[in-house]
Order: sequence, then C-alpha cells, then structure tokens
Amino acid sequence: MRKDFTNFNYEYIIIITFSYNSHTDYMAIQTRSNTMADRLKIGIVGAGRIGKIHIENIARFIPQAKLEGLADIMLTPEQEAWAKGLGARIVSKNPQDLFKDPEINAVIICSSTDTHADLTVAAAQAGKHIFCEKPIDLTVSKVRAALDAAKKAGVKLQIGFNRRFDHNFARVRKYTLDGAIGDVQLVKITSRDPAPPPIAYVKVSGGIFMDMMIHDFDMARFQAGSEITEVYAAGAVLVDPEIGKAGDIDTAIVTLKFANGAIGVIDNSRKAAYGYDQRVEVFGSKGAAQAENDLPNTVKLSNETSVSAEKPLYFFLERYKQAFVDEMISFTDSILNNKPIAVTGEDGLANMYAALAALKSVKEKRPVSIEEIKAQ
Amino acid sequence: MRKDFTNFNYEYIIIITFSYNSHTDYMAIQTRSNTMADRLKIGIVGAGRIGKIHIENIARFIPQAKLEGLADIMLTPEQEAWAKGLGARIVSKNPQDLFKDPEINAVIICSSTDTHADLTVAAAQAGKHIFCEKPIDLTVSKVRAALDAAKKAGVKLQIGFNRRFDHNFARVRKYTLDGAIGDVQLVKITSRDPAPPPIAYVKVSGGIFMDMMIHDFDMARFQAGSEITEVYAAGAVLVDPEIGKAGDIDTAIVTLKFANGAIGVIDNSRKAAYGYDQRVEVFGSKGAAQAENDLPNTVKLSNETSVSAEKPLYFFLERYKQAFVDEMISFTDSILNNKPIAVTGEDGLANMYAALAALKSVKEKRPVSIEEIKAQ
Amino acid sequence: MRKDFTNFNYEYIIIITFSYNSHTDYMAIQTRSNTMADRLKIGIVGAGRIGKIHIENIARFIPQAKLEGLADIMLTPEQEAWAKGLGARIVSKNPQDLFKDPEINAVIICSSTDTHADLTVAAAQAGKHIFCEKPIDLTVSKVRAALDAAKKAGVKLQIGFNRRFDHNFARVRKYTLDGAIGDVQLVKITSRDPAPPPIAYVKVSGGIFMDMMIHDFDMARFQAGSEITEVYAAGAVLVDPEIGKAGDIDTAIVTLKFANGAIGVIDNSRKAAYGYDQRVEVFGSKGAAQAENDLPNTVKLSNETSVSAEKPLYFFLERYKQAFVDEMISFTDSILNNKPIAVTGEDGLANMYAALAALKSVKEKRPVSIEEIKAQ
Amino acid sequence: MRKDFTNFNYEYIIIITFSYNSHTDYMAIQTRSNTMADRLKIGIVGAGRIGKIHIENIARFIPQAKLEGLADIMLTPEQEAWAKGLGARIVSKNPQDLFKDPEINAVIICSSTDTHADLTVAAAQAGKHIFCEKPIDLTVSKVRAALDAAKKAGVKLQIGFNRRFDHNFARVRKYTLDGAIGDVQLVKITSRDPAPPPIAYVKVSGGIFMDMMIHDFDMARFQAGSEITEVYAAGAVLVDPEIGKAGDIDTAIVTLKFANGAIGVIDNSRKAAYGYDQRVEVFGSKGAAQAENDLPNTVKLSNETSVSAEKPLYFFLERYKQAFVDEMISFTDSILNNKPIAVTGEDGLANMYAALAALKSVKEKRPVSIEEIKAQ
Repeated sequence: MRKDFTNFNYEYIIIITFSYNSHTDYMAIQTRSNTMADRLKIGIVGAGRIGKIHIENIARFIPQAKLEGLADIMLTPEQEAWAKGLGARIVSKNPQDLFKDPEINAVIICSSTDTHADLTVAAAQAGKHIFCEKPIDLTVSKVRAALDAAKKAGVKLQIGFNRRFDHNFARVRKYTLDGAIGDVQLVKITSRDPAPPPIAYVKVSGGIFMDMMIHDFDMARFQAGSEITEVYAAGAVLVDPEIGKAGDIDTAIVTLKFANGAIGVIDNSRKAAYGYDQRVEVFGSKGAAQAENDLPNTVKLSNETSVSAEKPLYFFLERYKQAFVDEMISFTDSILNNKPIAVTGEDGLANMYAALAALKSVKEKRPVSIEEIKAQ
Repeated sequence: MRKDFTNFNYEYIIIITFSYNSHTDYMAIQTRSNTMADRLKIGIVGAGRIGKIHIENIARFIPQAKLEGLADIMLTPEQEAWAKGLGARIVSKNPQDLFKDPEINAVIICSSTDTHADLTVAAAQAGKHIFCEKPIDLTVSKVRAALDAAKKAGVKLQIGFNRRFDHNFARVRKYTLDGAIGDVQLVKITSRDPAPPPIAYVKVSGGIFMDMMIHDFDMARFQAGSEITEVYAAGAVLVDPEIGKAGDIDTAIVTLKFANGAIGVIDNSRKAAYGYDQRVEVFGSKGAAQAENDLPNTVKLSNETSVSAEKPLYFFLERYKQAFVDEMISFTDSILNNKPIAVTGEDGLANMYAALAALKSVKEKRPVSIEEIKAQ
Repeated sequence: MRKDFTNFNYEYIIIITFSYNSHTDYMAIQTRSNTMADRLKIGIVGAGRIGKIHIENIARFIPQAKLEGLADIMLTPEQEAWAKGLGARIVSKNPQDLFKDPEINAVIICSSTDTHADLTVAAAQAGKHIFCEKPIDLTVSKVRAALDAAKKAGVKLQIGFNRRFDHNFARVRKYTLDGAIGDVQLVKITSRDPAPPPIAYVKVSGGIFMDMMIHDFDMARFQAGSEITEVYAAGAVLVDPEIGKAGDIDTAIVTLKFANGAIGVIDNSRKAAYGYDQRVEVFGSKGAAQAENDLPNTVKLSNETSVSAEKPLYFFLERYKQAFVDEMISFTDSILNNKPIAVTGEDGLANMYAALAALKSVKEKRPVSIEEIKAQ
Repeated sequence: MRKDFTNFNYEYIIIITFSYNSHTDYMAIQTRSNTMADRLKIGIVGAGRIGKIHIENIARFIPQAKLEGLADIMLTPEQEAWAKGLGARIVSKNPQDLFKDPEINAVIICSSTDTHADLTVAAAQAGKHIFCEKPIDLTVSKVRAALDAAKKAGVKLQIGFNRRFDHNFARVRKYTLDGAIGDVQLVKITSRDPAPPPIAYVKVSGGIFMDMMIHDFDMARFQAGSEITEVYAAGAVLVDPEIGKAGDIDTAIVTLKFANGAIGVIDNSRKAAYGYDQRVEVFGSKGAAQAENDLPNTVKLSNETSVSAEKPLYFFLERYKQAFVDEMISFTDSILNNKPIAVTGEDGLANMYAALAALKSVKEKRPVSIEEIKAQ
C-alpha cells in the first residue's frame, strides 16, 4: 500500500514495496533501468512553504523525478543558491523560463492562489503536464478556463488534494472498494484545525468552505465514490468573534446528498484544543470503516488520575507528511506510465461547486443543489 | 457515579455507592431506617416487555420502592400469579384500581402508546406521581393535556428517556458540567440499530424521527444543555425499500441548532451490520468528550488476519440494562426526597417538537424551526 | 456467554440467555417448571464480606437456589433479622445446625480461613455438597483431608476461584478452546492490587503467593489447560518496607513451566497507583488473545494535555462483580444437573502447590518443581 | 522529540524540529552555516542489508554527515558505481583504505559479525570514531579488547542498539525520567518475531539470547535505568523442532533483577502469527507507561464478525525505520558536538553478559548472576 523509492544511482533504482498484508512478499525489490530519459523532469513555480515541501520530497523520495528548474517572482539569492545546489538547471523569477524550456516535462504550480489559473493555462499551452496546488482559483470561470486549456493541450492536470493519499483514508476507501462494507450509505468526516489562521488570512481565504472544508468535500466525494448533488450548511461563529466580523464562520456542519443515494456529513471547527482532528467514517450495508487520528506514539500512561495517550499529530504538515510524498509519486507515475490522474481538474471543480453551494446554503438558510450552482 | 442498592431487610437498607474516581470513599456504606413508610409504593400499568423490565428492576435493585399493584387489560392468570408472588396487593385488568388505591404513591405507565396520555391524565387526577414511557403521545395536543393535568394536580411526571442515565453518556455530560470541555460548540450523536423492526411496526411507529431519533433529540438537548431551535433533516431509504413503501425512511442525518449557539448532528440507520451503534461526542472550547460503544468484553484476538475485538453489545436491552435501573432509582429518589425530576414532561414535549420538525424538514426539503412547529 | 436468570414465580422461571455473537438467537427465552423440588437449598456459613455477597447474589440472581439457613459464630441480632427477612428457615451460631438439617442440599463455607477445612470435612460427612471459599487451608495435609472427605462422601466440592468466570478471561479461554490461537505457548498474567492490605492482615495472610498470586496460579493453569510443573519466583519489597519486616514481599515475577511444554509468567504488585490491574495474555501458534482491564465507561476526554480515559474498575468487588454471580450459578447448575464442577478441590490443591513452590523458590533462590513440593 | 534534517545546500541547513507537545514552538526552524568543515565525514565498512540502510539514511536524512568512502570485501562493480554516484571518494575492498584516509572522521562497521571486533580495534588505532553494529563479538575477550582499543585511542564508540531511539520506547523512558511513573519497580518487555530465521542462520547466530533477546536486555537496562544483576531463563522449543536440533530454543521467558532493586521480565518468541510484537511496559510507584505496537494505519473495520484493526508493522525494517535514522543522527551529533554517546561499548558488553547469563541459566536450570559471568 505504501511506496517508497530509493535512488541508488542514475542507472538503477531500487523500488521497495511494503505490503503489510502479506508475509511472503512484504519487501519485493525490483531493479530496473532508470536512464535519464526515464525520469520526469520537473520545474517548480513558487518556493513558499508548500513549494519547499514538494522540492524536498522530490529530492529525497522520488528518484523517478528530477528537479530541472525553479521560478519564483520573489526569488532571493539564497533560494537561487539552494536550488542550484539541488541540481536545478534553470533558476529564474519568470515561470515562462520553465514553460518554454524543451527539457521540462511537467510543472508544479505552488505560487500564490491568484496566479494558479493563469499559470496553469500558460503551462498547458506550453505542453507541460501540470500539478497545481488547490484551489485552482476562487472563481468558477477561471477554473473552467484552466481545465479547458489543459484538455485542449492534451496535458495531464493533477490538483493538490493530498488527503486521498493519507494512509488511513486510503485504507478506508480500499475497504469500500474491496466490498468489505457493502454499499456506502453514510459518510462522516470530522475535520478540525488546531488553531485558526490569522484574521488577515481569513479575509482573503475565500471563507471556511473554500479554504478548509474544500478538502473535506474532496474526501467525501472520494469516500462516497459518487458526486455531491445537494448541500445544507449550518454555520456559527464560536471560536473567535473576529472571524465573524471578517464575514466568515469558524464552525460548521454540512449535510451532503450524493448521486448514488448515500448521505453524508462534515463538521469543521477552526480550533480544536487537542489539536488536528482528522477522522473519516464510512458506513455501508455490510459494516463500517473508521479512521482515527494518528498519534506521535502508542504509549499509554496510567496514573492516579487516568489512563492517557498523546494528542493527535499537531497539524497537516505532521499528519499528511507522507501523503505529500505519495501524491507526488502518484503524479510522476501517472505521467511516466500514462496512467489516469488520481485527483483531476474536474475533481477540483466539483469540490469548488460544493463549497459554493455550502456558502450559499449558509447565507440563504436552505439546502442548495449543485445543479443550481452550476447553472449560475 | 453508579448506584446500587441492596435490601437486606425491611428495617435496614445498605446503600453501596461506587465512586470510581476516588480511592478513599469508593464504597461508602450507609445504613438507615427504612420502614414501610419510607418506601415508594408503586403501581404498574402494562406488563409487556418494558413493563416486565421495570417490575423486575424494582424487585431486584430498588429497595426504596415497593410493588403494590399491576394492571394490564390483557392480564393472564400466569401474570396474576406472578405479580402476586412478587408481593403485588392489587392485580387487575383495570388501571383505575391502581389510581383509586389510597396506598399507592406513584404509577408507572408502560401500556400501549395510544393509552399513555389518557392514563397519565387519569393518574394525575388521582394524585399519583407518574413515570410514563415514551412517547406520551404522537399528537402535541394530547401530550400538552397530559402535562397540564400533571401540573394542575401537582404530581411529578418523568418520561422514560433512559439514555441520559447511561454510564457513558452521563460521564460525557459530567465532563461538560465540570467545565472540562469548556463551552459546548458541537454535539454529534451516532445512533444505529442492529436491525429494522417489522414493517407492521414501522407503519404505526410514527416514523423514524418519532420512534427512533426522538431518543437522540433528547440526548442532544441533554448534552448541549440547551433547547433545539431549528432542524434540518436529510433522509433516505437505503436499508429496506419496504420501509420506503410504508412511508418512512431508514437512514437520516439531522442538523440541529441550539438556543445557546451550538450546533449538532445526529445520524440514524435502522440497520448496522455490526450491531447497536450508540456513540456521543461533545466538542467544546477546551476539548472534547467521546463515548464509544460498550463491548461484551475487552479481549483482543491477534492472528494472521488482523487484531480484532468483539462487536458492540447487541441492542438496547443489553446496552441500557443499567440505565433502566438507574432511571427508576432516580424517579424513586425524586419523589421520596422531593428532588427535581431528571426527565420531565416538558422534555418529552421538546423532543417531540424536534421530531415533528425533522419530519416536516424531510418532507419540505428545508430547515424547520421549532417555533414554526409550536405555532401550528 | 453470559447467563442471567429471572424468577417470575415459583412455578416458572424465565431464563434469558444473552449470546452476543449471534444475531438470531441473542435472546432465547426458555420457560420450564421450577417447583420447590427443583431448587437447590443452600445453607451459608459465615456472614462476612464475601458471605454477604454470596447471599445477596443468590437472592437476586439465582432463582434455582434458595437460601435455607445461615450460621455465623458471631451472629448478631441484626444479621438474624436480616437472614430471616430473606427467608432463611435456620439462623444459628452453629454450622452443625445447617449440616444436620435434612432439607439443605449444599453449603457455602465463607467463614474465616482457619475453619474452612474442618467445616468442609463436617459438611461432607453430613452429605452436603460444598462451595468453599479459597483457600481451603494453608497446610497441604488439611486440604488433602478435606478433599478426601468430600470424595469419600461422594459430594461435590467447588472452590471459590471466581476469576475463571470473568467475562474477559472466560473469553480468552474460549478462543483457545475454539482453536483460534492454536497451541498455547506462553501465558502472561498481570495482577496488581490498588493498595496493599493492612500489615496485620499481611502477617496472617500466608504471604503474597498464597494470598494473592494463588488466584493467578489458578488462572495460569486454566488458561494453559495444563498443570504447572516448575516455578521460579523473583520477589522484592518495593511498595512498603513494613511488608518486608512482616516477612513477606510485595512485588513478584514468577516464571511457570507447564506439563504441556508451554511456559508462563505472572507479575504481582500490592500497589498499582492507577488501580486494579488484571490482564491476561495467551500466546499460541496461531495468534494471541489479550484481555485488557475493564473501565467504568468508554469516554475519552481530549484536551490540551492528552487524550485520557478512566482508570480501571477499582478493585475485585467491582471487577469481578458478575464473576461472583456466575460462579454460584455454575455451582448450582453442577449440582442440580449433575454436571462436573468448574473449579474442583484438586484445583485448589494444585494452586496451593504452586504457591508453596514459589515461596520456596524465593527463599532458596532457585527454581522449584511441583514434584518436590508434593514429595515433602 | 523527533528530529528531521533537511540539507538545502552546502552553505545552509534547515533543521526542522517537531515538538508535538507544544503548540507554540512546534516547528522551530534554525538556519546555520554548514561548511564542509562542519560535516562528519564517514566511511562505511560493509554494504549488506544494514549497511545499505545506513548509507541511505545518511544520504537522505543527515545533512551533517557526508559519505566519504565504502569498503566491502565482496565489492561488486555495481556497488562501486553506486557508492561513487552517492559521492564516495574512496571505494575499496579494503577497510584500511578508509582507516588510513586522513579526511575520514568516523567509520560505520556493518560487515559480518566475526569481523566487528578486529575492525573496531583497527579503526580505533587509526583514530576514527566508530559506530559498530551489534554484536561487537560473540566472545567477551574480543569485545573487551575492542572497548579497550577505543578507550585507549580516545575515540567514541557507539553500538547499534537502535531500539532506544524508537519513538514509543523513548517516550516511555521520558515518562520515567520526568518522574511520571515514580520509582521503577517492574519492567516488562514483549518481543516476538514474525517468523524464525533460516536454520543455517540459527546455527551461527549465537542463540536466541545473543541474537534476539540481546536487544531486549539493552531495552530492559535502558528502561530500568539500572544494570542487570541476575538472570533466570526458562526456554522451550515450541515453534520449530529444527531449532531445537540446532541446539537453540525459540521461546523464552527471562526474569531480571536490577541493581536498583527493580525486577523485570522479557519474553521472546521466534514466531508470532500476527507479526512483529514489540511492547514495553514500565511500572513504578506512581503509575505505569505502556508502549503498544505500531500499526500501518488507524482504521477499524466493524462488520458482522467483529471490530478489527490491522496487524502490527511487519518486522524491524518497518517498525524501527525511523529509529535507524535517529541512532545515526545521535552518533553524528555526539561527535560533532562532543556529547556523550547514547549507546556505549560498555552497554554492548553489559547486554552480552546478560545474554551469556541467560544461556547458562537455561542450561543449568538456575538463576545466574552477572558477577558469575564476569568472573569467568
């Protein structure tokens, strides 16, 4: 289920596959030729927090990929030295320097959100495969334009909804696909942050549904194996009145209806005192699968007061550390081996529709169908 | 937290109080006089399944109460012999024989639902304290009449929402009351039955909200410490199409808004393959308390396949076995020591309003306020 | 797996059998005639703590048994009134009054330990079936005499090793018997008390092995399905130096070898800060079964500090509450239906040999075989 | 508690420290100069399974260390190319080529066990700091010689007992050091492999105590914070009779006495059907800390049969993946910053004494003191 790659040299790759469910083949070691021609040559736009994570993951864990270039409009001399040290051939303030380079096969767009759509269009027009961080944009028309551009250009487009690759949530989905829980009837997602973002961020975030719950809409669609058709959202300002003053809410419960007849619910809070709470439950005709939080260790302390365990891993960098690697492995694999993209641009758009429907539902205090949003 | 009573003789009662949180006083044994005059003399109307449980619990576990009489319109000779063997002075087919008896202090009404309201009125008029099984009635006007009668007569009225006395759910509430989770922000209730009732029952049940979720509305109000103000219900027929043909649904997600600003969600299914799923989570500004299912034992089996534990206790008789005892202890204690009733007639009415609002919400596909229901 | 009996009258008994592993027959209700002649008539010797528990359990939970008499050399007027109120026909300071009564079928011996053996002999000679609290005696010769007397008289003799009836430990054993863990290879028992007994008690207790670990020797033999052949004991005084001054130890690890080749280990402590720690693990060729502690509820509290659960149930009265009932149901059933006794006098003797071997092992700092103890 | 290093270039290192117990400083990013002079230059002897892991970990995760050379007497052209590709300046069949190189500061010895001691002596004489895989040797005299050589040369020597760095076991130890469990009284270690090694390996392994339990002796000493003074070992052949024919045992329970008065127990099995079972429990005057197994995910599947979770991570490569990195980080840090070595040569020797005592105990069926072993 997990994949891990070790690049021993430029000629050979050792792929170590851990399969925890089988004794006999738990470590199948495959050796295959990996000439330069085999590797995906990647250019990255944006060297912020998430950009650095992607760069580092590619360097450490993904021998099939190779960093060819970095572009960041705010490029510093330190970043330039760093990128070159990592082998980047092109280091620039202009993303076009990556797009027009004939060697580069794919680009990762992790610049600021307002640039995602335009850069996606530009990269597509340049014939590059694209991994774009979520959201593509905050307006449907620009997202649609980006998707159209990729389609027209015949390039692959993956969106950074990384939680599908989480070891827990992927296992839940696998139980469903294996038939272990029968037909999906209920999907329940708990998703709470350890602390709210700064108010300045809240104001430009697009709101809780577009900024935070959009991940959960993606998870809901992933786990249900079906599209959302209707949304009802109940919201409240319970964490910080400043969030309310900024026109947003910080606590929400959203009911979902899916095309396959299943129903679902997501709850969000901007602040859980005990840390990042990320749980998923899928209930079906034959049973249920529940993913609990990850903990930093398994130790239980028993004393006069109680039997206690540690709080969940603090936030998304800790919880989804491996999922960030695995989404990039999946992207690389999709392109090198011409497999379907795991999280498509259409997924990004569908998640956005759900978020817009939730926003409208909260404002108009009624259930809102996705059709209504699409028709706008 | 748990109470257990042992009647050693008519003169003395040993009350054993288990307090699991304190070493020093974990078993405080109090001895006090318990002459006949101290005991609550109870007449029971209805000797069906739940009636038998109450009778047995009073006989086994509640020395402060005494069975004085039984009335059942379908009374059999076997039931008569049995009740007399248990010390019942009056055994009759006519509840009025209990109501007019001067010795009897309180009556427990567990006859068929359609008789609850009239019997409550009659008992109240006779000056008896009343424990009435849920629901009081399926129509608001008759419930209101029953409440009015009890109020006018100055008698205490407790409704059989026994889950408040469950050891797990009571512990969650206690954490809230102790301030351990801060202000309540979210209440989440999972409530799923192991198997649907017969279709014949479904047809007369009043529907999933009135028959099944009404317990969860009570739990939600109990845990939130606040009244429900608005309900949005999403329902589906996923378990058995016959339930749909009977005009009911078998799967539901209901969003709640509370007067104190908190929001909540309940999900119901008429059939969980793994048994009776009864969980509660209360999330607040300082933390969260989660009650998991009770299991028949703690054993984990590790083998080549997995690490497995037993399924939850099968159904409400197993899960709420002690809660049935504890609600009756509470009722007895309220009357003998003139304490407030734990689950009042007003609670019963409020739960009913929520159920009616949910029903209307599902039908009209919109959120429905409790005020709207009350105004009908 | 659990049995619960409800006595509705003298003519009929409703036996409710909960079988948690099967949906279809989870509540099989059997009705059968239960005339007086069917009931086991019991006399009890000793009305101390454990005597009261047995009396109460018989009165509340075991309709097939009937309390006929009580004898206690320290009998108070209150005890006399109490026993008569519970229906005892004979109340006396002299156990012989029970033994010579022709109606009484069985006696329960829960007087002080030094009287167990003689009373067992006397009861056997009077032809009464016997339930004797552990230990029968602290010397082998007197235990042997008691066993011989019972055997000669052809009466059944059960010893009060109640933990075999614990819902968790019985489930572990059932997994083994069902073949789920294959051949038993390791048995591990953790057994720690919440607090040491008073020093005065320690001095007359026979020591930690005879007083405390003897229960664990019985559990080890029960779970291994085999006799102990050799013991090595490492002991220490870590809880209270006064225990050491009294010639005893308060902490011990004892290695066991079984006749079937399996090996085992028990650890004891007289004081676990977090309460009564009672766990069993059986490891075999196909897997392992682990029984964890029972908790008062399932609630987890998550806050800024940790995720915590409650401590285990405080002590043996709480943890083994149902096991005390079930051992008495088993005893009653063995006699009424002529089934084998679950915990025999030979079991009691074997446990004692193990305790004596452990004591010798600690003193002589070497492993000691059971053969060596038997040969003394 | 966890450390993770990212080498962005030769001039700057970003050290990301995850501190899961603190909100405020959960990600402290420190940037410091890391010129060549700052990095530990390492030569590795042996490119077998464990050698490859160390090389890979150094390359991926430890920017403060730099691979300078590799020596393997069986060196293949592929290995040579691979090592050079990773930047090794020296690639040779002769370890002396590493020892005599003036640039290399430290060597990692992971060749075959029979060469460890001699290579350690040679490396020490060459003035290199040494990380030596366990065991140093199977004879005390050679181990002693290696330790003496390191001491005489004034070089640091770390032994590869990596489990001290396991996130769970380190957390248990931290609870003890923080005083959360009071004085240590009992240490219990469960350590079972998923499958026995080949018989050919068993024959040269030195036996279960020297090959397998030696890790647990180290863990016991680590957790007790005290030296083992006496050992009693009960062994059995229950997994595979071929192991017995090879003169070894496959199942063992070993009782330990520690210098500080605590006692302990380790159980080993060469085959647990459910996988790698690695648990530690430390019990003290104020409470207990228990480390459970790591699982590949947190998902619970509830169905008609049971509630099940996944088996533990399969074997040591999965379970101790991060511990292998962390031991090397610790070694590098000890040398670069002149801190004490976490697992010294004396630790290795003490573990060996315990293993030899256990072996003698099993053979002579008596407890054996460490003094007795040392005096041999």
